[in-house]
Amino acid sequence: MTPELERLFEHLRFPSISTDSNHAGDVRANAEWLVKQFEGMGLQTDLHETAKHPIVTARNEQVPGRKTVLIYGHYDVQPVDPVALWDSPPFEPEIREGKIWGRGGADNKGQHFVHLLGAEKMLQEEGELPLNVIFLIEGEEEIGSPNLVPFLEQHREDFACDIIAVSDTGMVAPGVPTLGYGLRGITCLEVKVQGPSGDLHSGVYGGAVANPASAAARMVASLHDDEGKVAVAGFYDDVIALEDWEREMWAQVPGATDGDFLKVTGSSEVFGEPGYSAAELIWARPTVEVNGIGSGYQGEGSKTVLPAEAMFKLSCRLVPGQDPEKIQDAVIAHLKTHTPKGVSVEIERGHSGKAYHNDPHSSFGKAAQVALEKSFGKPPVLIREGGSIPIIQDMKEILGADSLMLGLALPDCQIHAPNENFAVENFEAGIEMSRALLIELSKS
Amino acid sequence: MTPELERLFEHLRFPSISTDSNHAGDVRANAEWLVKQFEGMGLQTDLHETAKHPIVTARNEQVPGRKTVLIYGHYDVQPVDPVALWDSPPFEPEIREGKIWGRGGADNKGQHFVHLLGAEKMLQEEGELPLNVIFLIEGEEEIGSPNLVPFLEQHREDFACDIIAVSDTGMVAPGVPTLGYGLRGITCLEVKVQGPSGDLHSGVYGGAVANPASAAARMVASLHDDEGKVAVAGFYDDVIALEDWEREMWAQVPGATDGDFLKVTGSSEVFGEPGYSAAELIWARPTVEVNGIGSGYQGEGSKTVLPAEAMFKLSCRLVPGQDPEKIQDAVIAHLKTHTPKGVSVEIERGHSGKAYHNDPHSSFGKAAQVALEKSFGKPPVLIREGGSIPIIQDMKEILGADSLMLGLALPDCQIHAPNENFAVENFEAGIEMSRALLIELSKS
Repeated sequence: MTPELERLFEHLRFPSISTDSNHAGDVRANAEWLVKQFEGMGLQTDLHETAKHPIVTARNEQVPGRKTVLIYGHYDVQPVDPVALWDSPPFEPEIREGKIWGRGGADNKGQHFVHLLGAEKMLQEEGELPLNVIFLIEGEEEIGSPNLVPFLEQHREDFACDIIAVSDTGMVAPGVPTLGYGLRGITCLEVKVQGPSGDLHSGVYGGAVANPASAAARMVASLHDDEGKVAVAGFYDDVIALEDWEREMWAQVPGATDGDFLKVTGSSEVFGEPGYSAAELIWARPTVEVNGIGSGYQGEGSKTVLPAEAMFKLSCRLVPGQDPEKIQDAVIAHLKTHTPKGVSVEIERGHSGKAYHNDPHSSFGKAAQVALEKSFGKPPVLIREGGSIPIIQDMKEILGADSLMLGLALPDCQIHAPNENFAVENFEAGIEMSRALLIELSKS
Repeated sequence: MTPELERLFEHLRFPSISTDSNHAGDVRANAEWLVKQFEGMGLQTDLHETAKHPIVTARNEQVPGRKTVLIYGHYDVQPVDPVALWDSPPFEPEIREGKIWGRGGADNKGQHFVHLLGAEKMLQEEGELPLNVIFLIEGEEEIGSPNLVPFLEQHREDFACDIIAVSDTGMVAPGVPTLGYGLRGITCLEVKVQGPSGDLHSGVYGGAVANPASAAARMVASLHDDEGKVAVAGFYDDVIALEDWEREMWAQVPGATDGDFLKVTGSSEVFGEPGYSAAELIWARPTVEVNGIGSGYQGEGSKTVLPAEAMFKLSCRLVPGQDPEKIQDAVIAHLKTHTPKGVSVEIERGHSGKAYHNDPHSSFGKAAQVALEKSFGKPPVLIREGGSIPIIQDMKEILGADSLMLGLALPDCQIHAPNENFAVENFEAGIEMSRALLIELSKS
């Protein structure tokens, strides 16, 4: 094991589970360990208290006139249940089959630690970094970063920067460097459908009472046409269309063909808005998705109940151009119009976040492309992602800077699940990539 | 308290919960107590062992040439959970507000015990009953009478009869004698909808994968039109239409107006096949009802999952003319035709039972009407019920005899629920009704 891997292992041994208050001490200990790492590099390092878990920041001397890059990451991790499904203990990292196994390997300790190591190596060899660097490593990403946004709003000037680098996404396939330039946004809703005042016997009353399970089903069914296109009025109005170069590039992206997609998801066919590939649907088209539906008896055997109520949860993935609030309004209006007779409906608005995208052909985007090519030996593919990372849009709004998404996790990295892992080769290439990135950004 | 009530209380104190094997001894003790009651009346009494709980039978001397009535009941009861919701202990009966409170009061101990007491009184006063009487009191009704059908098939001749009397249904309102002459049948189905091979992240994959929750909703929604009429091809083909006298009578039945129905169910409007009253819909029209639907995350807050599977349970209530198997086939064919793209479906057939009805204007029906009028002081209403009592159709098939449903339970009797109760006045009128019934049947 290299000394770098030894240090990553130290990082991974902290059970820094931010959602579990029993682990608050571990989260803090991990933050303090990070502080020592940055201090060891000679950076000006601070541990910022928040209402919950601390934020660690570190910076070299901020020389006026130089470009400033902010490197974002998070040192908190997801819970590890069910522990029984792990092949090795989640907080006792080990290497097998060229991979580092342990919670936080990919999400996000391994991915931000390469940036620390890249900068450290450069400092050791060159004595200085070629631009102003600010590390911002938070401890609340897995609980929605509740304290980071107010922190940045309060310290807007301290974190002013030209560009942000984030390694918290994925590579499309092993050995294929990947630059992400877009994320979908999200808006969530929960619907409660109320029928009779209590559960009824389906024999004694069935046939004359609106069934809320049927009503919920009719409302859900009304959201799409038979082909899977969203049927909500105005839903696609503001969507920014895919550009030709995107469709051309995505058709060539390894690991992102329709066939790859069917294999990974275990689906029998691509199903969605007609006229798009799976990658296009996921990376650049919006959705209305049922995350859950429930009513009546779901256990074994039969129970002849006419349920009193039903619920369903929806989340919409949004793409650039769409306003979350406008979409939430449109979906609510649709659901109200499509509420069947005989039931009443209560709709609760959930959280929202805008979609994000930048221009990967900007000077910073090109710098990132060069850095990825230098460290991985081939030009990167340029993709968007289907998920949402709200903090990236938040940082855009607060700091005015775009984020380069330099993902290093492989498709089988199992983040948020048992057997999370991070490829050793990506850890090593990542350190090189980080160094190259600092150099390229300083030139751009 | 009258001696008759004292004896009913003894009956009610047995926790004869047939579904709970811990109570098997109580069920048997209750059967043995019943045997003693019948023996005390001088009847030829037998306790028949079955694979589970015993059947108690009793008969007077079966004189050739006389009519034979079989009186059916069950001495087993439903579980009592949640016990905390009972105002008095379920197996410590007491009288409050003119009602007998305790498990089994209405379902079915109170209702069959009046027949025992009616016959006993007549034997004491007249020394003989005017026709052949067979009591058949089983201990497995609440678990679906698994052993009664084979028992009757094996002893077909011993239980040959002209007519069956069953008090295991309800009166439409206090003081309104009620003769039931029809029940709906049932057929059940469970549907499993399979999408991707595992739950997926709705951001990482959503938009290109058929969502099984949406697919299940579309299938459920396809089962009815907007007005609540079943949309399955052929569903209504064999339904025997309501007769004019039924619609006229039902329009006058106290406690069975649409307004009563809305009050009892807490519904805002009658919803179902257009052109029928609530009573007509429930008593004489078939249904397809969703008893349960489930998929994805149903807990608090949001979870952005694209679920791997969904399920829903259906039960159809059937009316005279409909064949359960044919209807099950029609619903399955409909669901297969309406399975959306991108998912696979597995359909499991559940249990079935035919609808039942007889002619309340037959000589036996008229005898029952007279008996009810004599004991309650006014002519009975003639109704059907929406629920299913499979054993009544089974007895029709095995013994060839129709069942007179002489319900004594009031609408607020809380069967299968906490605070089950049976009106003292119906207990007393029931004893008179039973006596009158024996006399009237012997004349018919």
